[in-house]
Amino acid sequence: MTNFEYYTPTRVVFGKDSEKKTGELVKEYGATKVLIHYGGESAKKSGLLDRICASLEEAGVSYVLLGGVVPNPRLSLVHKGMELVRKEGADFLLAVGGGSVIDSAKAIGYGVYNNCDPWLFYSKQAQAKGCLPVAAVLTIAAAGSEMSDSSVITNEDGWLKRGYNSNYCRCKFAVMNPELTYTLPPYQTASGCVDIMMHTMERYFTHETHTELTDGICEALLRTVMHNARILKENPFDYDARAEVMWAGSLSHNGLTGCGTVGDWASHQIEHELGGMFDVAHGAGLAAIWGSWARYVCEENTDRFAQFAVRVMGVPETDGSAKDLAQKGICAMEDFYRSIDMPTSLAELGIHPTDAQIQELAEKCVFFGKRTIGNFKVLNGEDVAKIYQKSR
Amino acid sequence: MTNFEYYTPTRVVFGKDSEKKTGELVKEYGATKVLIHYGGESAKKSGLLDRICASLEEAGVSYVLLGGVVPNPRLSLVHKGMELVRKEGADFLLAVGGGSVIDSAKAIGYGVYNNCDPWLFYSKQAQAKGCLPVAAVLTIAAAGSEMSDSSVITNEDGWLKRGYNSNYCRCKFAVMNPELTYTLPPYQTASGCVDIMMHTMERYFTHETHTELTDGICEALLRTVMHNARILKENPFDYDARAEVMWAGSLSHNGLTGCGTVGDWASHQIEHELGGMFDVAHGAGLAAIWGSWARYVCEENTDRFAQFAVRVMGVPETDGSAKDLAQKGICAMEDFYRSIDMPTSLAELGIHPTDAQIQELAEKCVFFGKRTIGNFKVLNGEDVAKIYQKSR
Repeated sequence: MTNFEYYTPTRVVFGKDSEKKTGELVKEYGATKVLIHYGGESAKKSGLLDRICASLEEAGVSYVLLGGVVPNPRLSLVHKGMELVRKEGADFLLAVGGGSVIDSAKAIGYGVYNNCDPWLFYSKQAQAKGCLPVAAVLTIAAAGSEMSDSSVITNEDGWLKRGYNSNYCRCKFAVMNPELTYTLPPYQTASGCVDIMMHTMERYFTHETHTELTDGICEALLRTVMHNARILKENPFDYDARAEVMWAGSLSHNGLTGCGTVGDWASHQIEHELGGMFDVAHGAGLAAIWGSWARYVCEENTDRFAQFAVRVMGVPETDGSAKDLAQKGICAMEDFYRSIDMPTSLAELGIHPTDAQIQELAEKCVFFGKRTIGNFKVLNGEDVAKIYQKSR
Repeated sequence: MTNFEYYTPTRVVFGKDSEKKTGELVKEYGATKVLIHYGGESAKKSGLLDRICASLEEAGVSYVLLGGVVPNPRLSLVHKGMELVRKEGADFLLAVGGGSVIDSAKAIGYGVYNNCDPWLFYSKQAQAKGCLPVAAVLTIAAAGSEMSDSSVITNEDGWLKRGYNSNYCRCKFAVMNPELTYTLPPYQTASGCVDIMMHTMERYFTHETHTELTDGICEALLRTVMHNARILKENPFDYDARAEVMWAGSLSHNGLTGCGTVGDWASHQIEHELGGMFDVAHGAGLAAIWGSWARYVCEENTDRFAQFAVRVMGVPETDGSAKDLAQKGICAMEDFYRSIDMPTSLAELGIHPTDAQIQELAEKCVFFGKRTIGNFKVLNGEDVAKIYQKSR
């Protein structure tokens, strides 16, 4: 077990009708004027935005609205949000949506607080000194941004997708009503489940030993998400299944699943470039490349993959050597992905990058040779290109 | 799954040498003068107090010391601490020790902040409006007070042991170096392990259904503590076993293991009275009464006890009816307690209450008929007296 810090200050308000508390919550956290940030029409049509606005009005807190966040949220809208916040004198950012909306709000918060283009942080040219207070009313269980220290923004100039992590952007509170995820399309629900699982798996595949409690939590979380993803494929209105997946989404990425381990994160970096170039759903992109990553790296620690196979995927411990178990575990995960209609290759994801595009993706991924990615196996540009190729 | 709030703002700094960061941490949290609160001679003898003081000096933060906290911490020392804090103008409370020291610091923080006798809160006559900032350098893995919202104080006037919970007292940070627990006597180590497990079991025994992720986390935590408690019996200097138990102690009582469930807490109330009258080690007291509680209540939800038997205690699922499994699970837990030299009866705990004393314990426990205890099965004074009798 390696030394670690664990810091999850976000207050979670979880359950039915919890969004009705939004007004009193923003007031409690000192907001005088709130920017309500959201995505497309669904929050309007469902009446959720109206309920949030009514809750703020009841608490006597004024607000201004900014919609239009898209998956892989764009820097240009962040700039627009910064302008609006300054013009209106907003002092609190309330994201109503999923990870993209929360990440966009976090970027606005960084930009206004530090009085600069927040891309400086995402492009690793500077470190933020703070962030306006951000909170979330969650409508998609996936990214875990409601409790995490991370956000990811796409810069249209070059279609670069980059993440930035700091404790400053952690949500003050997260309102989490599983019912708000009922109307997500099946593809987005499944994609969210993959994202949640991958946030745990990125941390689980480690060379660190003696991480018994963290392992047990990771394994329980992965089994829970798989079980409930299958239930949701049949019945999207199952409250308890929605609740399990939603709570797993937050715990998966708030730091808990990585206490004492050294995470890998190569799969996320590999997918981020796909997301930047092709605008694919993040979870689906992760599903499409994970098997290729796993087969490329698994000999670095066959026992770890064998443990995963037995404890998470239910492969019988007696089903062969550690190497056999490892391979069966990878196949079983791909079978699971397929069972919830997730892709296990780029072709199934619906994209067919040319050789030149694969080269470009790989080069962008390693910052044109300026960095490597991954810890379970350290990958350079050549490795990354091979993983993209194998996942075609 | 029931609606819940989850709020764990404590920053955990975990691992070897982490106590060396104490000075910079208290400074970061704005302390100008720190009350360093501790227990007996061990913190002095081990050199830990000297290292903490040196760390504060290096950070340029002044401090004043107050030792003398005993297990089942006393209200009189809390009063003394309040006087010292006021006299010295301390604005930050640093507990160096285990749950008793942290709880005593929390009570001092309540008293000074609210400018009143904090017993008003513990005796449920008033609600606190805040608390001085408290942080911990943990030396005993047991109570979980380093991340919890609770503290327990014993009033020598009537030997009443009472708890008070609020988010105000949550530690700003917790420094957790597993090495600091190496020198705990075996009895105290084992007693701590029981306490940790009971914080999870109090939440696990619930009638709430669809708590899949929380169940999985609880079960992993219980298995982890049992496994490592046995290792520590053989080798108290096993870093990884100490680390697993220490981290489990915090997670067990920070709220995580109860998300979506309705906890029971009768065992804690029953033990609290024992602790007040006989000054026994808290975990050992819990071990002594748990089996009697479990047998008294298990028919309220046999399936829950059967699940516990199979998933936590490793009783084979095919080993009989749910009722059989439930009984075998209880026996297996008592076997585990005995395997780490913990008592499974009051006699083994070394106390032999008279009938009159049992009556007094039971009456105090239910506030002389003013309350019932427990949720798994609601218990009145008569029930509590029977459980004390059965645990003789």
